[in-house]
Amino acid sequence: MKLPGQEEFEVSSACENVPTGELENGPGSCPSPDGTSDTDRGDQGIPTDPLLFIQLNELLGWPQALEWRETGRWVLFEEKLEVGAGRWSVPHVPTLALPSLQKLRSLLAEGLVLLDCPAQSFLELVEQVTRVESLSPELRGQLQALLLQRPQHLIQPTGTRPCQGSAHPGEASHNEEAPLKEQRQNPLRRKLPQGAEAGAVLAGELGFLVRPLGAFVRLRDPVVLGPLTEVPLPSRFFCLLLGPSTLGRGYHEMGRAMAVLLSDRQFQWSVRRASSLHDLLAALDAFLEEVTVLPPGRWDPTARIAPPKCLPSQHKRLLSQLREVKGPSAQHGALAEDRHGHWPHVPSPELQWTGRLFGGLVQDVRRKALWYTSDFLDALHPQCFSAVLYIYLATITNAITFGGLLGEATDGAQGVLESFLGTAVAGAAFCLLAGQPLTILSSTGPVLVFERLLFSFSRDYSLDYLPFRLWVGIWVATFCLALVATEASVLVRYFTRFTEEGFCALISLIFIYDAVGKMLSLTSAYPIQSPGSPAYGCLCQYPDLGGNESQWKETEPKDRDDISSMDLGLVNASLLPPPECARRGGHPRGPGCHIVPDIAFFSVLLFLTSFLIATALKHVKTSRFFPSVVRKVLGDFSSVLAMLLGCGLDSFLGLATPKLMVPSEFKALECFQPVVHAHVLLPPTTQGLGTGPTLPGRGWLVSPFGANPWWLSVAAALPALLLSILIFMDQQITAVILNRAEYKLRKGAGFHLDLFCVAVLLLLTSVLGLPWYVSATVISLAHMDSLRRESTACVLGEPRSFLGIREQRLTGLVVFILTGASIFLAPVLKFIPMPVLYGIFLYMGVAAISSIQFTKRVQLLLMPAKHQPDLLLLRHVPLSRVHLFTAIQLACLGLLWIIKSTPAAIIFPLMLLGLVGVRKALEWVFSPQELLWLDELMPEKERNIPEKGLEPEYSLSGDTEDSELMYQPRAPEINISVN
Amino acid sequence: MKLPGQEEFEVSSACENVPTGELENGPGSCPSPDGTSDTDRGDQGIPTDPLLFIQLNELLGWPQALEWRETGRWVLFEEKLEVGAGRWSVPHVPTLALPSLQKLRSLLAEGLVLLDCPAQSFLELVEQVTRVESLSPELRGQLQALLLQRPQHLIQPTGTRPCQGSAHPGEASHNEEAPLKEQRQNPLRRKLPQGAEAGAVLAGELGFLVRPLGAFVRLRDPVVLGPLTEVPLPSRFFCLLLGPSTLGRGYHEMGRAMAVLLSDRQFQWSVRRASSLHDLLAALDAFLEEVTVLPPGRWDPTARIAPPKCLPSQHKRLLSQLREVKGPSAQHGALAEDRHGHWPHVPSPELQWTGRLFGGLVQDVRRKALWYTSDFLDALHPQCFSAVLYIYLATITNAITFGGLLGEATDGAQGVLESFLGTAVAGAAFCLLAGQPLTILSSTGPVLVFERLLFSFSRDYSLDYLPFRLWVGIWVATFCLALVATEASVLVRYFTRFTEEGFCALISLIFIYDAVGKMLSLTSAYPIQSPGSPAYGCLCQYPDLGGNESQWKETEPKDRDDISSMDLGLVNASLLPPPECARRGGHPRGPGCHIVPDIAFFSVLLFLTSFLIATALKHVKTSRFFPSVVRKVLGDFSSVLAMLLGCGLDSFLGLATPKLMVPSEFKALECFQPVVHAHVLLPPTTQGLGTGPTLPGRGWLVSPFGANPWWLSVAAALPALLLSILIFMDQQITAVILNRAEYKLRKGAGFHLDLFCVAVLLLLTSVLGLPWYVSATVISLAHMDSLRRESTACVLGEPRSFLGIREQRLTGLVVFILTGASIFLAPVLKFIPMPVLYGIFLYMGVAAISSIQFTKRVQLLLMPAKHQPDLLLLRHVPLSRVHLFTAIQLACLGLLWIIKSTPAAIIFPLMLLGLVGVRKALEWVFSPQELLWLDELMPEKERNIPEKGLEPEYSLSGDTEDSELMYQPRAPEINISVN
Repeated sequence: MKLPGQEEFEVSSACENVPTGELENGPGSCPSPDGTSDTDRGDQGIPTDPLLFIQLNELLGWPQALEWRETGRWVLFEEKLEVGAGRWSVPHVPTLALPSLQKLRSLLAEGLVLLDCPAQSFLELVEQVTRVESLSPELRGQLQALLLQRPQHLIQPTGTRPCQGSAHPGEASHNEEAPLKEQRQNPLRRKLPQGAEAGAVLAGELGFLVRPLGAFVRLRDPVVLGPLTEVPLPSRFFCLLLGPSTLGRGYHEMGRAMAVLLSDRQFQWSVRRASSLHDLLAALDAFLEEVTVLPPGRWDPTARIAPPKCLPSQHKRLLSQLREVKGPSAQHGALAEDRHGHWPHVPSPELQWTGRLFGGLVQDVRRKALWYTSDFLDALHPQCFSAVLYIYLATITNAITFGGLLGEATDGAQGVLESFLGTAVAGAAFCLLAGQPLTILSSTGPVLVFERLLFSFSRDYSLDYLPFRLWVGIWVATFCLALVATEASVLVRYFTRFTEEGFCALISLIFIYDAVGKMLSLTSAYPIQSPGSPAYGCLCQYPDLGGNESQWKETEPKDRDDISSMDLGLVNASLLPPPECARRGGHPRGPGCHIVPDIAFFSVLLFLTSFLIATALKHVKTSRFFPSVVRKVLGDFSSVLAMLLGCGLDSFLGLATPKLMVPSEFKALECFQPVVHAHVLLPPTTQGLGTGPTLPGRGWLVSPFGANPWWLSVAAALPALLLSILIFMDQQITAVILNRAEYKLRKGAGFHLDLFCVAVLLLLTSVLGLPWYVSATVISLAHMDSLRRESTACVLGEPRSFLGIREQRLTGLVVFILTGASIFLAPVLKFIPMPVLYGIFLYMGVAAISSIQFTKRVQLLLMPAKHQPDLLLLRHVPLSRVHLFTAIQLACLGLLWIIKSTPAAIIFPLMLLGLVGVRKALEWVFSPQELLWLDELMPEKERNIPEKGLEPEYSLSGDTEDSELMYQPRAPEINISVN
Repeated sequence: MKLPGQEEFEVSSACENVPTGELENGPGSCPSPDGTSDTDRGDQGIPTDPLLFIQLNELLGWPQALEWRETGRWVLFEEKLEVGAGRWSVPHVPTLALPSLQKLRSLLAEGLVLLDCPAQSFLELVEQVTRVESLSPELRGQLQALLLQRPQHLIQPTGTRPCQGSAHPGEASHNEEAPLKEQRQNPLRRKLPQGAEAGAVLAGELGFLVRPLGAFVRLRDPVVLGPLTEVPLPSRFFCLLLGPSTLGRGYHEMGRAMAVLLSDRQFQWSVRRASSLHDLLAALDAFLEEVTVLPPGRWDPTARIAPPKCLPSQHKRLLSQLREVKGPSAQHGALAEDRHGHWPHVPSPELQWTGRLFGGLVQDVRRKALWYTSDFLDALHPQCFSAVLYIYLATITNAITFGGLLGEATDGAQGVLESFLGTAVAGAAFCLLAGQPLTILSSTGPVLVFERLLFSFSRDYSLDYLPFRLWVGIWVATFCLALVATEASVLVRYFTRFTEEGFCALISLIFIYDAVGKMLSLTSAYPIQSPGSPAYGCLCQYPDLGGNESQWKETEPKDRDDISSMDLGLVNASLLPPPECARRGGHPRGPGCHIVPDIAFFSVLLFLTSFLIATALKHVKTSRFFPSVVRKVLGDFSSVLAMLLGCGLDSFLGLATPKLMVPSEFKALECFQPVVHAHVLLPPTTQGLGTGPTLPGRGWLVSPFGANPWWLSVAAALPALLLSILIFMDQQITAVILNRAEYKLRKGAGFHLDLFCVAVLLLLTSVLGLPWYVSATVISLAHMDSLRRESTACVLGEPRSFLGIREQRLTGLVVFILTGASIFLAPVLKFIPMPVLYGIFLYMGVAAISSIQFTKRVQLLLMPAKHQPDLLLLRHVPLSRVHLFTAIQLACLGLLWIIKSTPAAIIFPLMLLGLVGVRKALEWVFSPQELLWLDELMPEKERNIPEKGLEPEYSLSGDTEDSELMYQPRAPEINISVN
């Protein structure tokens, strides 16, 4: 039906096909802080509907003191004016009562609908809207005056000081002089994207009306309607819902319903293109068809639902429209397509086989060369500074601890200084040249185990270690180059989550084990004195002062433990503490002299404190406290702050805890201090025990043969083969983990190039006698994690979304330059106590292991079925099968751990390769469906799915399941990150 | 319209008035574990509708292999069959699509509706249901056979081992022989209350039907319909929704809609009383009127909404019905009434003024006498055992630490032994006789401060302390009895939350301060040896063995500090550790002999560990891990377990940490060990310093005058007046906190009786020279908290609700008997290190302070406005006003703390009274509305509210606000508990 004054225009851009760019315009589409991320993908050139800001102005105070007050606003979610508190509510999912939608529908059907109204100002609009037959001229005048009355807005400052500003509603807006200034200064405006439009809904009870008055206007050209909306945006829609008192709060509810309708993108899309009242009502009916209904007895309608983490894709609603047009078959095709897009293992361009020698490498170089400049420009962000600090400290700690381990294992052939030099050289070169410059090279884990074995082998057979090692290195480099030439890296597609998780869990466990082990070794270096302990007492003896050493009663004690039970007959002795004693020229004697009390427990305290503080600070980022900036700083710098706090506590108490010792002089290889040295109070020369200083008298280059027979250079190919497998696995699994789809890397991976770099660096470090390096999973993940880009929530209530990683080469490069320079930074670094660093290591290991799905499944073992979280996995795979899969993974992990710890460790690389075999064998135990949920599918299986694998489940559980699959991304479950 | 075969019966119990008992039958109405709690209140005698278990059986496999499978079930919430996983989903709020409800409505309108069908078996029912015109006889036969086919149920074991049992759906039920046994053994059955009925919905696609077939049956007598439902409950409702393939999954959705409708109590109520199809459809329309609608773009309809913590009251829906009948005024009256019921300060019977001398006391005695037997019987629950252990350990720790403090403050007039004796006697007597036996008496906080002042006054004027104290006690008892006689306790109604929170925060802070302070005093008793520390070295000297003490070079050292710089010329000396030295008859000499290393940091570790473990274990109760029983045990015994772990760690390392020392002999008052004694390695006789052993030579009774002048007995009335105020405030604020409405105490309070008991005990302890006691807030709250009764979630998905406290006298009595007996328990208790106990104290203090609303408001100061939680408070009071209120409270707290710590502490009682005055003065600053949200209203204001105070807010925000006020209980925000 048409009311008088109703004008209709034909919309020129009538809808034929819904542009997907517009429909996909979900929460991720808001402008990202640096404005670069999203514009270069997706919806380029496709004109999208502008975002709509909707405001509900309510008419209050009938009959005495009529006033318009803004009582609600919507962008994605609803914000309600808390009248008593004078603030905006928390953004929440709007809930409506069904009757209010139905009443609105009938009011619109009977009311005035102006589509493409040419009004250019609010006055014109008001005149058009009030041109209704049912109104007498006086009433019309009264109504016009009322509509032109300035509404009261609550403009809330969103600064860091919440108690400032106009807390009382309307207080600020009573000032009639500068309304537009106030509107312009509204901080909300900055949160809305460029080109946003407004929609105003005016609703309320107006006693002098005889019958309800409904009007819906779409303006042809959006105009700023004076002080109507709190943000001076051009308004596109205007809706008036007034009526006599019979309905009471009904008008408020209808107004909310209208606003919610307008805030729905689908409805908005239809209404923007509607050409008649019929189209408008059809859009409303389409909305009603899709609403979700909550039963009254089970849900309090006044409860506010927090915005969901993941909004339903508009795509889905397009599909449901498509389904109605083309039937279910069309939808199925679309589903399969969409589902495919979610799989991380769709062959990416990096892993396509070219069939040419070094074809993959060439393509990697070509692809990465395009990004090379941006790899340095993209690093200009303060976050990178934090990342450098964090990763630098992690790297040198790593270099020292694992350098120490290596030194221990190789009798000093590979010590801390080599570790520093090698890390700096290899790391920096890798960051400059590699395909994935976010990778941090390190000599942790499996390679260390292998080197230890190699050394003990060469010792057993009295071989010259470094030359032997050089040949192994030459062979490994050769094999690796062959793997690069034959594009073997495309096989990483067989590394499914099963393999990745097994490897990642192993590496994380090694991290945790080493951190705790190192910590415990500190407590044995600084023993705790229990009450009955014989190591008690220390005497200061002055042999030269009195000259009468003969006053010792009988003989010199045979060993130190003996001294405690011996009687003393000494004159020139005192109870001075050892340092003081040494200063006065005496010698401290007695078992207690070597004991530094309190260090053991204080170290434990420092260890726990730094671990707990790093963990707690990381959580600050998602807590409610402090302004966003502070939280972000605390979260990003959590590890650095935890370290600083630990150092502060340590230096405040001034105890002689073991500190981070870096060689103070480049040449001073001989007098290099071991890391863990208990006898800090004694002069350095007396410290006989150590964990591996550099071998004295070694040159810059390793001689190719040394004392070894010539055929050893050929025989070295055998261990080299095993090591090649290890390096390939280690390097590529880490690369696969780092290049996972959920990290949203834009610049692509470079599997071939990375392996090539590793091979070349391996050759170089073998020649120089430095440690071997591959990508380190845990530290690289920590590196990426410290470079996360996240959207600053742009529209109110919208969840923060992860945008990607700051992919660049500079942070890594700076880290390794600093590592090299650290040899000269000893005076600063010596304030860092080792227990603090071990605590941070523990934090890194725990963070890495707790972020893999495997850990979640292990936790499921401890949970009764009814308390288990509602994981998609558990909805689709029987619990017993999930547990079986977890148990197999646990068994593999245990086996790997055992092999790593026994002499059989030499076959460890083969076992790692065996993981892929186990995964392949699992296809006999588990159905493809189950493996799809528990793991991923291997390449050849993947191709078969649409035909046989998944059909049964589809047919059984139908639509709802499909949509769950599609719109709850699987990524969050398998997100390996140290966050 | 009526279909052939449709039978209608007139329902005899036609609805006139909805019995409120039925409507209030919310989540709290399930049978509580002991079956006593809810039955004695509320719905006695009113017949309530039985609970309905609804099951959806879906017809799957058309056309090849038709089978019925249970795919959903409902009691309060929906559980969906996870087909792939073969398990029931997590219970969730059911969501429906609006079209499915509308399609269901039209199918029912055209279908068969049998109300009060007399069928006695499933066969009869099937025959009745299929007697439809549209079916040919063959089809009818086919349909009947199909309906009689046994459905596949997923019967899930709910035991502790989740991976056992039939994980594959239908596997167990393939066994055709024993269906009923399987049904009977269904563990779900035990979770449903006695008398529950079933409703079965059968839905699906059936290709041979030409038109949809809908049937709804209400059975006259509920019958067990064979294997139809998984639980063999008598079925009351049966619904059949079958049709041709055109609708596809529509039947499934319609079936769900029907099940959700039936699970709605209001719909169920109507349908049980419906007499025609019209009534049925009206009930469905009424349901539709009340549904909550979520817009499609903002909410993924497949997302599962977790059951809300607080279900909407059915009462509300009754009100909305009433409103339609009687108009808004009726509703308003009902609202005011209901709102009133939520206020904690509605004068309770305990606080009504009788106007007779001792009238309140007499009424208290009368009221409590009724419960006296049950006060002992109610204690028969294992939870009480945990409570006894926990509170016992807290009490003796309290007795020792505060006894030590008191001893220090009074030069030993009140020592640890007096503290033990007094606590045992007074506590046990109070638990036997008092009005609120959950109270734990203690001499903490303010009373201790007062006693310290009293003692220093008597010392300054050379008074005989104990006789002076006796007279103060006599006067205080007299004043308190006068307060009892005049029923002054009714004034506690003026103690609003403002006063309570101020007091509770103060006491909690004293707890935290003392715990941390005691801990720090340990570190000064066991100093940390920094590298330059002069306290180094210890020598063992044998004076008698050699007999030649003359070999000391010059003179005996003047003091111990001098020895370190002195040269030794001693023959008969060794470096034996002191205990060994003492065993061999030597004397340890040197500054290092008194130093026990590692104790300080180990104590800090124990302190932090016990605090963190107690906190973590408390959280286990609400975690997902472990079966409920284990979680409950870990949660309930958290403090005891934390203590045990601490003791285990301590005894594992075997260090000489300070232990809990209780006098080993009753008479050995002189040689009593002080609590914190650094020199544990020395024999007891050398321990000169102490914190207050009992005065030697004191009798059992204090002499009335001693050396004091006679007029002092009169002058003592002045300090006694102040102390009386303090005792009254301390006792009654604690009593008010303990008797808060949210603890759901059934046996009522006894304010007058409690004060009477305190007065009598005060007189007794003054005569015996023992410490004075009042109720201890923190420990009493911990006591109550350890006695919480919670519902075992009876219907799936229903939130656990707090049922009340195990109110009884036995736990307290046993605690104090054990405290008395602890004097003989020294050999056991000496294994408990003090740092562990301090850690538990810290836990108690932190738990107490973090549970008051004041703390939440202090936290708000640190939160930016947009991150603040959605507290009801913040919806109604401007943030600046909230902050102002918090700031005033902080200022009061600071002032109290300062006064407590300075010589002005004597006026502390007046300041506490001043809190009430400050609260009164706040009425000039804040509006009654604001005070209602921030605090409570004082008695006289309360009466005025309906007229003026709250109306404006009502009229502005209308219905939704009212309902929020009513159904989101305010209690959780102000729940003071140590949980």
